Amino acid sequence: MANKRGLLFIGLCGHLSTVTMAGAMAIANEICPPTGMISTSEECSHIPFTDFDDIVFGGWDIRSGRDAFSPIKDTGIEDIEQLYLLTDSVKSIQKQSFPGVILNAGEAISGISEQSHVVKTGSLTEAVEKIHYDIVRFREENDLAQIVVINLTSTEPPVKDACLFDTAKGISSIIKKNMTECIRPSFLYAYAAITSGCGYINFTPSEGGFSHGLVELARQYGVPVMGNDGKTGETLVKSALAPMFAMRNLEVLSWEGYNILGNTDGKILQNHENGASKIKSKDRLLPHILGYHPHSKVSIDYVPSLGDRKTAWDFIHFQGFLNTKMSMQFIWQGCDSVLAAPLILDLARFAFLALDREESGVMTHMASFFKSPWGVDEHALGKQFSLLEEYCSAIKS
Amino acid sequence: MANKRGLLFIGLCGHLSTVTMAGAMAIANEICPPTGMISTSEECSHIPFTDFDDIVFGGWDIRSGRDAFSPIKDTGIEDIEQLYLLTDSVKSIQKQSFPGVILNAGEAISGISEQSHVVKTGSLTEAVEKIHYDIVRFREENDLAQIVVINLTSTEPPVKDACLFDTAKGISSIIKKNMTECIRPSFLYAYAAITSGCGYINFTPSEGGFSHGLVELARQYGVPVMGNDGKTGETLVKSALAPMFAMRNLEVLSWEGYNILGNTDGKILQNHENGASKIKSKDRLLPHILGYHPHSKVSIDYVPSLGDRKTAWDFIHFQGFLNTKMSMQFIWQGCDSVLAAPLILDLARFAFLALDREESGVMTHMASFFKSPWGVDEHALGKQFSLLEEYCSAIKS
Amino acid sequence: MANKRGLLFIGLCGHLSTVTMAGAMAIANEICPPTGMISTSEECSHIPFTDFDDIVFGGWDIRSGRDAFSPIKDTGIEDIEQLYLLTDSVKSIQKQSFPGVILNAGEAISGISEQSHVVKTGSLTEAVEKIHYDIVRFREENDLAQIVVINLTSTEPPVKDACLFDTAKGISSIIKKNMTECIRPSFLYAYAAITSGCGYINFTPSEGGFSHGLVELARQYGVPVMGNDGKTGETLVKSALAPMFAMRNLEVLSWEGYNILGNTDGKILQNHENGASKIKSKDRLLPHILGYHPHSKVSIDYVPSLGDRKTAWDFIHFQGFLNTKMSMQFIWQGCDSVLAAPLILDLARFAFLALDREESGVMTHMASFFKSPWGVDEHALGKQFSLLEEYCSAIKS
Amino acid sequence: MANKRGLLFIGLCGHLSTVTMAGAMAIANEICPPTGMISTSEECSHIPFTDFDDIVFGGWDIRSGRDAFSPIKDTGIEDIEQLYLLTDSVKSIQKQSFPGVILNAGEAISGISEQSHVVKTGSLTEAVEKIHYDIVRFREENDLAQIVVINLTSTEPPVKDACLFDTAKGISSIIKKNMTECIRPSFLYAYAAITSGCGYINFTPSEGGFSHGLVELARQYGVPVMGNDGKTGETLVKSALAPMFAMRNLEVLSWEGYNILGNTDGKILQNHENGASKIKSKDRLLPHILGYHPHSKVSIDYVPSLGDRKTAWDFIHFQGFLNTKMSMQFIWQGCDSVLAAPLILDLARFAFLALDREESGVMTHMASFFKSPWGVDEHALGKQFSLLEEYCSAIKS
Repeated sequence: MANKRGLLFIGLCGHLSTVTMAGAMAIANEICPPTGMISTSEECSHIPFTDFDDIVFGGWDIRSGRDAFSPIKDTGIEDIEQLYLLTDSVKSIQKQSFPGVILNAGEAISGISEQSHVVKTGSLTEAVEKIHYDIVRFREENDLAQIVVINLTSTEPPVKDACLFDTAKGISSIIKKNMTECIRPSFLYAYAAITSGCGYINFTPSEGGFSHGLVELARQYGVPVMGNDGKTGETLVKSALAPMFAMRNLEVLSWEGYNILGNTDGKILQNHENGASKIKSKDRLLPHILGYHPHSKVSIDYVPSLGDRKTAWDFIHFQGFLNTKMSMQFIWQGCDSVLAAPLILDLARFAFLALDREESGVMTHMASFFKSPWGVDEHALGKQFSLLEEYCSAIKS
Repeated sequence: MANKRGLLFIGLCGHLSTVTMAGAMAIANEICPPTGMISTSEECSHIPFTDFDDIVFGGWDIRSGRDAFSPIKDTGIEDIEQLYLLTDSVKSIQKQSFPGVILNAGEAISGISEQSHVVKTGSLTEAVEKIHYDIVRFREENDLAQIVVINLTSTEPPVKDACLFDTAKGISSIIKKNMTECIRPSFLYAYAAITSGCGYINFTPSEGGFSHGLVELARQYGVPVMGNDGKTGETLVKSALAPMFAMRNLEVLSWEGYNILGNTDGKILQNHENGASKIKSKDRLLPHILGYHPHSKVSIDYVPSLGDRKTAWDFIHFQGFLNTKMSMQFIWQGCDSVLAAPLILDLARFAFLALDREESGVMTHMASFFKSPWGVDEHALGKQFSLLEEYCSAIKS
Repeated sequence: MANKRGLLFIGLCGHLSTVTMAGAMAIANEICPPTGMISTSEECSHIPFTDFDDIVFGGWDIRSGRDAFSPIKDTGIEDIEQLYLLTDSVKSIQKQSFPGVILNAGEAISGISEQSHVVKTGSLTEAVEKIHYDIVRFREENDLAQIVVINLTSTEPPVKDACLFDTAKGISSIIKKNMTECIRPSFLYAYAAITSGCGYINFTPSEGGFSHGLVELARQYGVPVMGNDGKTGETLVKSALAPMFAMRNLEVLSWEGYNILGNTDGKILQNHENGASKIKSKDRLLPHILGYHPHSKVSIDYVPSLGDRKTAWDFIHFQGFLNTKMSMQFIWQGCDSVLAAPLILDLARFAFLALDREESGVMTHMASFFKSPWGVDEHALGKQFSLLEEYCSAIKS
Repeated sequence: MANKRGLLFIGLCGHLSTVTMAGAMAIANEICPPTGMISTSEECSHIPFTDFDDIVFGGWDIRSGRDAFSPIKDTGIEDIEQLYLLTDSVKSIQKQSFPGVILNAGEAISGISEQSHVVKTGSLTEAVEKIHYDIVRFREENDLAQIVVINLTSTEPPVKDACLFDTAKGISSIIKKNMTECIRPSFLYAYAAITSGCGYINFTPSEGGFSHGLVELARQYGVPVMGNDGKTGETLVKSALAPMFAMRNLEVLSWEGYNILGNTDGKILQNHENGASKIKSKDRLLPHILGYHPHSKVSIDYVPSLGDRKTAWDFIHFQGFLNTKMSMQFIWQGCDSVLAAPLILDLARFAFLALDREESGVMTHMASFFKSPWGVDEHALGKQFSLLEEYCSAIKS
């Protein structure tokens, strides 16, 4: 019987996929422990998660392959032989990437492709069929029991006529009427993944990749979906810290967040259209947690020299007793891919589990993984995490 | 019927008492809102807390009175007339302070008194009687229904023969045998307060002011006690942030905390003996929350120019996926007294409530207010706060 | 003989003027020392500077008067009586302010005036005459030996047809042809000040207030001029730190500076047009000092809760030996007016001195006071300061 | 004719030597540019410095060899082949290290040796002869024109009877009388280097490695000496920033510096005796630059997880106009070895140059390289650097 599971990345050659695959291999080969992952913890030891050895990687990219050394060197792996091993293994997977679809991806993203590894498709139906075909072939060639597709592409601009995406019916009409100008590529992948029975995860804030209509479809096809926008850094800290101000009734006057980073993501987010999606996703939680709207700004600037090393400075100005103003600042210096990769593997393993358990629709217990958790109003990290704990402890060993 | 309640401060002329009294008056006079307090929140509106107008302030100090202007000017009160009003009202209370007891207070604390406003007592029994007498007289003169005593003095060195303080019996024998060399002044105040039917709160880490024996006595005398060591700044942030690392299974390698401050507290903590008590109290929570002992250091340095404005820099070095090291830093810049004062008023109001409800012994639902919460093993702020929420919602309106 | 000198502020009711006047009075009354000033230092003791007592303050404003308490309370003056004294003295001067001219000030500045204290003038000639008249009257009423006018208004948008301002001739034609659409109010003040024999200082980056044509005029009229844009905070630090990277041949890859502040200046700078002038002035020095153009950004955001307390976070990413990337950050938390005020008094005293010594044109020895020093190519703070030291030591005692 | 020069490290197997040698090789092989070095700059192009190719490396260590990969991986070298190349080349040099002398090195240093690679010597004379012999053999085997010895060992505790080291005569008597208890190992190396005609550089604050007596000897033997204590990080920034406060007459109230690092140096400095030498060296410059003694503290803590990545947080509290307190903070995150290595190569090249030019005694023009520059009272970075510029421009091309 097939024990193998497939994990397909949209954006297979990016930093994120590179580090995620290297990490899964490193854990499988006991080069390093699964630090940063939850599904491997003691508290989950009774849950039948997929082994790292049993995950087969693949996916799509609009770039034909890139140097995998630099993101892997930037991790803490300390041995030249192991660096070589991981780099070579990842490279050989990335060489076999499926060419990507970039219908209406927006200027910023199209600009990085140079058309080198892109499928030209005449219509939306044709594009969906192409993705379906890739999935089916991948399943058969690798004899896979289940497949999960995860969106790791850069943030897209918002979709047009967003209300059309609110129902399964609206989505069908978009495809049938070939309304290319409304959609974004991530929509096509999500649609194709769900309708071919895969679990689907939207790790980005792209609206195309997540909508009420897609969730409806997921329930119809009996597959789990998870989203939106992996919570890896500044927003993670915000969701842990903002409740403190609420619990002490300290009034947050201003919360200003400045993010600088230098990877492809940062470059894409420089584009005004794409950045808007992201900032909306990052700026949502404060009023939810505090119960009022402090002055607040989130900015993201592209600083090429930083590469994947992201730095955030947050200045929190608050008022306490006797109208006195005080402040707190934090500086978060993380490696973007390294923070995201364990979440991706956790999400995938929980999605495989959900497929096995025949759960469908939005997996709300995964709220703590997302900046804009779908189907849950809770933004405080502690309370989000309780949802996961409850889900896990409800599973019988 | 007497509606007035008495709140007696040990350390009546310090910054903390000054700001607490000014705050209660400012709230009562609608000069400013009760920001920083919980008992005034919507969620507590059904609870019959004591009005700010009904609190009569008093207490002990070894100093005969100090300038109240500077700590009040350092708040956000924006009007010269109101500054005057608050300063004068506070001064007139501080002028009537009871002289303090400094039996075996340690060198650092004795050093600040210059014997100007100190009661010389021959034996422990005599000292306790003196405090009893102050309490009784204060109750009668002001026609008070209830009294709460709160310890706001600087941190004392540890007690000797700590095990003697573990039982009510041991405590009796200390008093009877006049073992002056074992005790610290805060012990005498705590003992006198509890045995004369007052609620008692230890806002400091001083061991003298809190022990199993004192708690046993509190149950015998039917009074509530709360402690230890108000959680106002760096430790508050720690207790909100450390759970985030746990929830993400990010391994904290090192958590180094440097505190600089310039008030009397800071000066006293410079003394090695006194500082040890404090640092122990601050450094306890990480292993509790994380489940392992990261490299960790908490240092407190006296920087006179800062006055009451405390600054803490915490550097958190953590390891994530693929052994990669990353870091987070925070800088907390708070006004010590202004952060503590609303906690003090909240604690007092919850203590008056407990007296009315005839609750006795340790009030474990107040854990979120303390660095070293007594009777509870929980150090994560969110979970501590849930205890308070449960207590409040169990009270019928 | 008249020993009194007049110091006229354009923007008499702003935070800056308020703090400057309070400071001069506090020094004259020995309430506080002249910390932050250079002209009072030992090294300048041989120079016959104007006494603080001998300065008569006045000026223009488009607001009819504001509360002077808040900026003065925010200083370190520790005594209620002295706070009162300074506040009242400053208020009585601000009550007598001349109404301002706002011809073509740009939307952001016009917006704050509400026309309450503004002179309506039909033509440029008429406006200049109005300012001339104010100056003459002020001189006569106060029996003044010399007058210096200093521009403390918020940053204006750039002028139109900037080349017209390059010569005295061009400037004459602007006035004669009544080219209102080209000018900004600060131009009118500068022109009027210079042509009535006053010293003139442009403490802002506004182009209207400083140009080659104005400098030419200053030489013709025999008066000293100084500019541009007081160097008070982040840029001051930059000019001290950037040379360090140059002296060590460490390659600055990126220097990102984020400024947040909440005073009127911050509000005006939010306006895109006005902000552009400022950022240009702040961003100029790095290429000068380093000899190449690192990635660099300076942003200024308006955070109302901060008031006059400005915070800047600068992140400097640099590359050293073996291509290794490292970083430095600094956080500057200053009180804008308090940093600027002593520079203003120093500039004024050096300008009075220059008038006495009959020096005219740009005073290049004042370069260290300005973000965009006129007539000097040097931006490294240490070398700029040497110019001042040389000037001072050349003056015979 | 021999063009080759020898550079002998005391501490050949440490991080510092590793990175210095890798860097020299990388520059010679054009793998990376000489960023961080001054002697390679345009302004020095007329000076006949030794080529990187012409430097032969060697030295002593009490450890028999260590893994060179980790410090080299931690640099920015981006290519696996080049990492290999540099690592292997460095390793082969370190394999041939001379065994070290640890007579009276202090507990902390002796503790790391485990006696694995140590010469046991009966007397000081014998120890000096041993070092002499190593130098002579190295010179002959490699046919070297000149040799420079540089002390890169961890900080030693202070010497005893320091005044004995004040004259060449005193030094002779120490050796003759075999006063082992007075000396530290670095003294023996320095003495042997100077008396065998080598240039000598003390890159550490160790008193043993630099003294008036050694300088006298250097003049007698006609060799150049340079010291003390390479200025690489926090102190470098201090010497660039403190003059800013002086130039603005802003009164520094407190300057608190906290250093955390995790390399062998950090470990040794944990030891109270060794740390004292270092902190004295770091804390010296503020009173020199400011002209008064602000409250000031420098602390160094060992945080193993940081390895060679040093982090410093400095909090500067200052007072400006109207007694107002403001603050500046900086965070310096550098790689210790990477910052030091280019200084070491610069110092060596300037020392070879001095040997060629027959300059002897202390090279005061190198002041900007040292925390405790010998023979110069200047601590402001800019003025120190001017000394170097003058020296360089006086050399005829």
